[in-house]
Amino acid sequence: MVKLLPSWHEGPARTAIIEFVQAVTAENGEHYVAPDDRLAVFDNDGTLWSEQPVYFQLQFALDRLEEMALDHPQWSSTQPYQAALEHDVPTLAAIGKKGIAELLAVTHTGMTTEEFEDIVLHWMDSARHPDTGRPFTQMVFQPMLELLSYLRANGFTPYIVSGGGIEFMRPWTEEIYGIPPQQVIGTSIETQLETQDGRPVLMRQPLLNHYDDGPGKPVGINRYIGRRPIFAFGNSDGDLQMLQWTAAGEGLRFCGLVHHNDPEREYAYDRGSVIGGLDKAWDEALDKGWTLVDMKNDWKRVFPFADGKNG
Amino acid sequence: MVKLLPSWHEGPARTAIIEFVQAVTAENGEHYVAPDDRLAVFDNDGTLWSEQPVYFQLQFALDRLEEMALDHPQWSSTQPYQAALEHDVPTLAAIGKKGIAELLAVTHTGMTTEEFEDIVLHWMDSARHPDTGRPFTQMVFQPMLELLSYLRANGFTPYIVSGGGIEFMRPWTEEIYGIPPQQVIGTSIETQLETQDGRPVLMRQPLLNHYDDGPGKPVGINRYIGRRPIFAFGNSDGDLQMLQWTAAGEGLRFCGLVHHNDPEREYAYDRGSVIGGLDKAWDEALDKGWTLVDMKNDWKRVFPFADGKNG
Repeated sequence: MVKLLPSWHEGPARTAIIEFVQAVTAENGEHYVAPDDRLAVFDNDGTLWSEQPVYFQLQFALDRLEEMALDHPQWSSTQPYQAALEHDVPTLAAIGKKGIAELLAVTHTGMTTEEFEDIVLHWMDSARHPDTGRPFTQMVFQPMLELLSYLRANGFTPYIVSGGGIEFMRPWTEEIYGIPPQQVIGTSIETQLETQDGRPVLMRQPLLNHYDDGPGKPVGINRYIGRRPIFAFGNSDGDLQMLQWTAAGEGLRFCGLVHHNDPEREYAYDRGSVIGGLDKAWDEALDKGWTLVDMKNDWKRVFPFADGKNG
Repeated sequence: MVKLLPSWHEGPARTAIIEFVQAVTAENGEHYVAPDDRLAVFDNDGTLWSEQPVYFQLQFALDRLEEMALDHPQWSSTQPYQAALEHDVPTLAAIGKKGIAELLAVTHTGMTTEEFEDIVLHWMDSARHPDTGRPFTQMVFQPMLELLSYLRANGFTPYIVSGGGIEFMRPWTEEIYGIPPQQVIGTSIETQLETQDGRPVLMRQPLLNHYDDGPGKPVGINRYIGRRPIFAFGNSDGDLQMLQWTAAGEGLRFCGLVHHNDPEREYAYDRGSVIGGLDKAWDEALDKGWTLVDMKNDWKRVFPFADGKNG
């Protein structure tokens, strides 16, 4: 018999997952849940793949800005472009959110949805993670890939519910995670229908439609799925409301958090981290008995390619 | 052998549907489409169920306004409430869109998503269609129910893409159409996460998030599905862009329109109708060779309950 979740050490996290899945799939058990209601939601950054040293979508924006700068020589002396191109973080921080929004708008909008998909796929093919030299789509967690497969084999439908851009993820989530576009929820912008050469296209507009983080995650789940999940996995305070929303349903629920405590194989950060800070959600996990994944001790391997970022 | 689409007369519409489905499912055929890409989109009002004498959701709003008026005596002399309660259409028309929006906001927002679901289900149980005396959920088209089943049996995933409210439809579409909430796209409002008695709830806000009609339909399809459908069915000019968007993909596509020309069994309306007007989309269907369903001659029966609204 094939071992379940082979990259997970035997321990409380693996046991909690398996016991939950067995409980909700046992047809005559008191916790049985019909397949239609076996909805599982996963954060992406820091839960399914790494998010250090910076969110991968931020790296995408910076790389794209550099490429676009060739056609915009004035950016070398115009803010916020100059600061971004020079990686001048203090100046960027001083410019604040409005500057970041402008950089995101310039790099993410003004093209058709099809053009943006090509840009994302091209970047995924060519860009490399600064610490491992690997394509970003290899920086995914092998134990979580196994968890997705295990859930699917047990009749679950896994969704991504991420603060990241929905159209930054959809071009590759099916190949990498087995999660098709319609099961990807994320931050989204407005699009507008136009006609180009007699053909309808959707132009990406610099206008937010949905910010899918923190309290926006239950909003997104309700908007896209219209049903409450029974299983949720995150890694940071941005996932707290998604976990609470999942836990607030009736019947057995699973809430899990990945704790990044493995600086050798991946990264170590939690309370106080600007990226993926884990503080209030950690306290609530301890209080409510949610499953905390101790990456260092629960995962036999971290990435599919080797045992850790230096491997 | 069970006859396919038994409520459809043999004729060009039924033939076009069957030939399309056979073409895209023939594994070695030149038009083969993998099951993951067999996405079908259906308008709701006038396509899957009736929309006369008024959109059913408008009837819901008016019924709810009447119920709420018991607690708002001042409405009997305040506009736009007075006009709505008195069914004074000229005054309502003079007040215009802002008044309609206020009526929709008052009847559709200010409660949790769970409370709204209960309100909708209670109305569906108790309200009756003015012309047939039937529950509104029986005013669905038997031939379209058969088409949904036929598509599902051939590996298609049908979605609703409606100008109607997403949370007005989701509570009952699975039971009536076999279409689960996550396959229902519609007009949606903002919700906001709040805590009630220590439990997270989503409060419905009087603020539009997405208007899913006309050019909003391709926007909604892209936002929710992230893939282009290969099959689309509508009945009015509000579906034109959805049909064009579907047709603009590569490979074989099916575009269909229900033409309401059966005043005996259902209703007859097309060009110039305020509700469900069919004009530009009709011209384009003729021009592009899309399938036009002649309700009177293509459908053996219209509703599940009997042969027509007087039956």
